[in-house]
Amino acid sequence: MIKVYGVHGSPFVRKVLIALDIKGIPYEVVQQMPFSRDAEYLKINPLGKVPALVDDDLTLCDSKVICQYLEDAYPEVALYPKNPKERARAHWYEDLCAGRVAELASGIFFQRFMRPFILKQEADEVLVAKIIDRDLPPMLDYLESQIPADGFIFGDFMMADLSVISPFINAGYAGYQVDAARWPAVAGLIARVKQQPQVKAVLELEAKALGLG
Amino acid sequence: MIKVYGVHGSPFVRKVLIALDIKGIPYEVVQQMPFSRDAEYLKINPLGKVPALVDDDLTLCDSKVICQYLEDAYPEVALYPKNPKERARAHWYEDLCAGRVAELASGIFFQRFMRPFILKQEADEVLVAKIIDRDLPPMLDYLESQIPADGFIFGDFMMADLSVISPFINAGYAGYQVDAARWPAVAGLIARVKQQPQVKAVLELEAKALGLG
Repeated sequence: MIKVYGVHGSPFVRKVLIALDIKGIPYEVVQQMPFSRDAEYLKINPLGKVPALVDDDLTLCDSKVICQYLEDAYPEVALYPKNPKERARAHWYEDLCAGRVAELASGIFFQRFMRPFILKQEADEVLVAKIIDRDLPPMLDYLESQIPADGFIFGDFMMADLSVISPFINAGYAGYQVDAARWPAVAGLIARVKQQPQVKAVLELEAKALGLG
Repeated sequence: MIKVYGVHGSPFVRKVLIALDIKGIPYEVVQQMPFSRDAEYLKINPLGKVPALVDDDLTLCDSKVICQYLEDAYPEVALYPKNPKERARAHWYEDLCAGRVAELASGIFFQRFMRPFILKQEADEVLVAKIIDRDLPPMLDYLESQIPADGFIFGDFMMADLSVISPFINAGYAGYQVDAARWPAVAGLIARVKQQPQVKAVLELEAKALGLG
């Protein structure tokens, strides 16, 4: 059976678990915190990040790479467009949102959720203000220009939609909400994706794992 | 005609130009420095990074995303394996080497090439020593475990090979050489990829652009 190394609450692990659920592929989750210095895990992922996936003789890291692998190896239900230009746009949105956008959203999550509730430290509010007021708006402006006012990016619900909104789930745990007056398409997409049954199910597991249940 | 925004010398632009050359696709290079604050370019890539590619009505960023798009839209000459597991491994190596490995190699390049020769500043040798002695060896150990002693990763020369070695070209401009006694597979792959005709041709253009010619 497929093994996914990771923990509930990671925006990257979330993508992989939801992709597996939508495709109806059985899996087990091996509890693995990110950025562990565990030498055994570093053999699986030299970056120490999560998720990693083991499928028989294949060991694979990075949520983008894993989700595209699942699409290639288990084509039903389709989670990426078949048209090369649309598929490329899906990959780019996924790369941007698993990269810079996740970095910013995770900054909010770390300062305003992990530090006060888990680490018993004060948040660095200067850093949070820079993210919210200076760094995140250009990313949201760009995403707003790419996302339709209604429905999903490529018609049906797909990885592109989930990739774009996943970082904002974590920022949401820390109290940040995308301003629906300024970025209505992004805010609307977040709301629609959260209503997808497989997304809802994984978010319920996360809420329990994070003590929000 | 396809437009590639970027400059010679970027490890990411290099991958795209070589992929286009191998596939025999005509293109023009639009000179674009990375991390420019140019508002027009930020509409193309909100990260300000290079390369970006424009193919008719498609605007696309990120070298990994662009190279996989070129493969899907222009399948000949094949640069990724067709087998899903091999293709996934190719994507993972590309992600790792365009991510953490490139970050470390670019650190050496910036400190020991850009600062002394372009910016007329002193290199931060403490930082360079940390990269060379502490951060890069675990990445090289991992790559060494994944790369065959001879030939290319998937038999024929492909993007995976180019992706793995591209950061080390830049570190090489700054005088860093992968220790062939400690990491013979990596050092051997670097040497073999540099001998590929399309790689040689692009490296000659780079040498001129960087004043190394």
